[in-house]
Amino acid sequence: VTAVAAPLVRAARGEPVDTTPVWFMRQAGRYLPEYRAIRERLGLLEICARPEVAAEVTLQPVRRLGVDGAIIFADILLPLPPMGLDLGFAKGEGPVIANPVRTAAAVAALRDVDVESALGPTLEAIRLVRAELPPEVAVIGFAGAPFTIASYAVEGGAARHFLETKRLMYGAPDVFRALLERLAGVVAAFLAAQVRAGADVVQLFDSWVGALTPDDYARCVAPFTARVIAALAPLGVPVIHFGTGTGALLEPMAAAGGDVIGVDWRLPLDEAWRRVGSARAVQGNLDPVALFAPRGELLRRVDDVLARAGGRAGHIFNLGHGLLPATPPDMVRLVVDRVRERTR
Amino acid sequence: VTAVAAPLVRAARGEPVDTTPVWFMRQAGRYLPEYRAIRERLGLLEICARPEVAAEVTLQPVRRLGVDGAIIFADILLPLPPMGLDLGFAKGEGPVIANPVRTAAAVAALRDVDVESALGPTLEAIRLVRAELPPEVAVIGFAGAPFTIASYAVEGGAARHFLETKRLMYGAPDVFRALLERLAGVVAAFLAAQVRAGADVVQLFDSWVGALTPDDYARCVAPFTARVIAALAPLGVPVIHFGTGTGALLEPMAAAGGDVIGVDWRLPLDEAWRRVGSARAVQGNLDPVALFAPRGELLRRVDDVLARAGGRAGHIFNLGHGLLPATPPDMVRLVVDRVRERTR
Repeated sequence: VTAVAAPLVRAARGEPVDTTPVWFMRQAGRYLPEYRAIRERLGLLEICARPEVAAEVTLQPVRRLGVDGAIIFADILLPLPPMGLDLGFAKGEGPVIANPVRTAAAVAALRDVDVESALGPTLEAIRLVRAELPPEVAVIGFAGAPFTIASYAVEGGAARHFLETKRLMYGAPDVFRALLERLAGVVAAFLAAQVRAGADVVQLFDSWVGALTPDDYARCVAPFTARVIAALAPLGVPVIHFGTGTGALLEPMAAAGGDVIGVDWRLPLDEAWRRVGSARAVQGNLDPVALFAPRGELLRRVDDVLARAGGRAGHIFNLGHGLLPATPPDMVRLVVDRVRERTR
Repeated sequence: VTAVAAPLVRAARGEPVDTTPVWFMRQAGRYLPEYRAIRERLGLLEICARPEVAAEVTLQPVRRLGVDGAIIFADILLPLPPMGLDLGFAKGEGPVIANPVRTAAAVAALRDVDVESALGPTLEAIRLVRAELPPEVAVIGFAGAPFTIASYAVEGGAARHFLETKRLMYGAPDVFRALLERLAGVVAAFLAAQVRAGADVVQLFDSWVGALTPDDYARCVAPFTARVIAALAPLGVPVIHFGTGTGALLEPMAAAGGDVIGVDWRLPLDEAWRRVGSARAVQGNLDPVALFAPRGELLRRVDDVLARAGGRAGHIFNLGHGLLPATPPDMVRLVVDRVRERTR
């Protein structure tokens, strides 16, 4: 616990800060040569299982970029193996779950998770990172939101049309809800444990809710997201609630909770902020592909996001989604410098 | 030319009709066993190259489903080979373009297209279909909008992040605009030829505009879409302007033109209609995955779309995107029957 909260935490609470805090989704990852060097000898899940390696990977972008937050290196699907799902990462293929959950029996067979032991390596990595960093750099914990984790658990991996997930939601809503309820319990416990381990702020990734109709989202998904966020309230750390393709979902997402609403680049930040209301902070929302543009064009786009934020308290600069693997690291640093320079 | 326009055409003009017209994007395609039987011996491009086969495939869903429109069997990328691009369809992999367009020289090297000869088989298929069908069934011509075709031409195939397309748009806007200008010319000529061949209505598919910021769409894309639509105005057939993920783009899409705005399921139809304005017709917007739900749930969702349309003149029932290959054909027929029964 720090005497004065880090700027990222203060911004998440809507409090004024000296310069707009900035971090990047997937800032620890494949675009960094120092990360790729570690990945040459260790797989993704192996890194997550070794706290000192996960901590090192978490710290790499903080050293290189000087960002305001260190998001712990982990994967949103880490809670699934202790629940009994057989998760693997096929070479360059993304996650594969050999025993997807599509029936009431499969949901009933999910195991309870003691997060302190089952997800201990991530918690230990948070402790290591928190001990290593100065108080002005926030440690960001995270988890997938129940729907987004469920989509992988039901599909057996990444999905394009969410056919099996929606088929379950539409055809067996009780089973779908039971699955989200189980996931909400594990996610809430995991995030609470991350806070106890030292996370100063947590982000809930509901990356794929944009595939849903607003009505389905509000009826079948939002209640479980709300349950996770409500469970965290007594801990006093801000929650960032993030999704993509949420042009029609911002209001029900905001209603589900979150001190900060994370928005992608498909909505202008000023419009998004107006819609979620000035009582919330917002995070975003540069197009990740802007980092492949020439410097002048990239800076113009950074400035546009800052102009739409209008210097109001409660803006955390970030991308609209994660850094792409081919992103030039120097361009990421350029964004950090520009945000600092323009908002000082 | 028919004495009284088909219901689909009348609805597209915002005129009252006896029952809400209904058709489905990708209604001619892989979910139909009679289509798969033809695909066992002919590739996609081979079907497109044989007018009598393309006409037969176009008519299959009209016979089976009794829909109000017959969309000609073709592919949005058909204009690319005559422009000099090497298009193929890898087995189960989607389109592949061996020589993608990413430079000013590549744009300059694109060939002019005489649509009457280069795309003659599609035009002949339209003539055959028009001659075969009664006047109350509309023949629907279509083309990809300049941006969506360009995304394939630049990426060399389907894209997830539109990295190369946006890199061109952000980094070499003059080259990007030159490419869209060339495509706009070919698309406008192709659609005009389709109308002369007998198409009663045309749909412009800008399926992937939802990947753009509203500002980029309005500045770099909409002017070329608008040019295509404006070129068709003298022909007097209605234009359906369709995109997905357009929650933040509906207003600029409507401003670019179209008698009908096609919307996906991510926005409630009533809200979408309010935003595009009551002077436009709207098309949509059932989630394609709803056809995998139990009958009762599917019918509830069909009824919900109809309720949001509110019986107002100017609604064309459709999905929010194309039929998925695994869709049960009987469920598609169920939707047609329900729309007829509920709106008679």
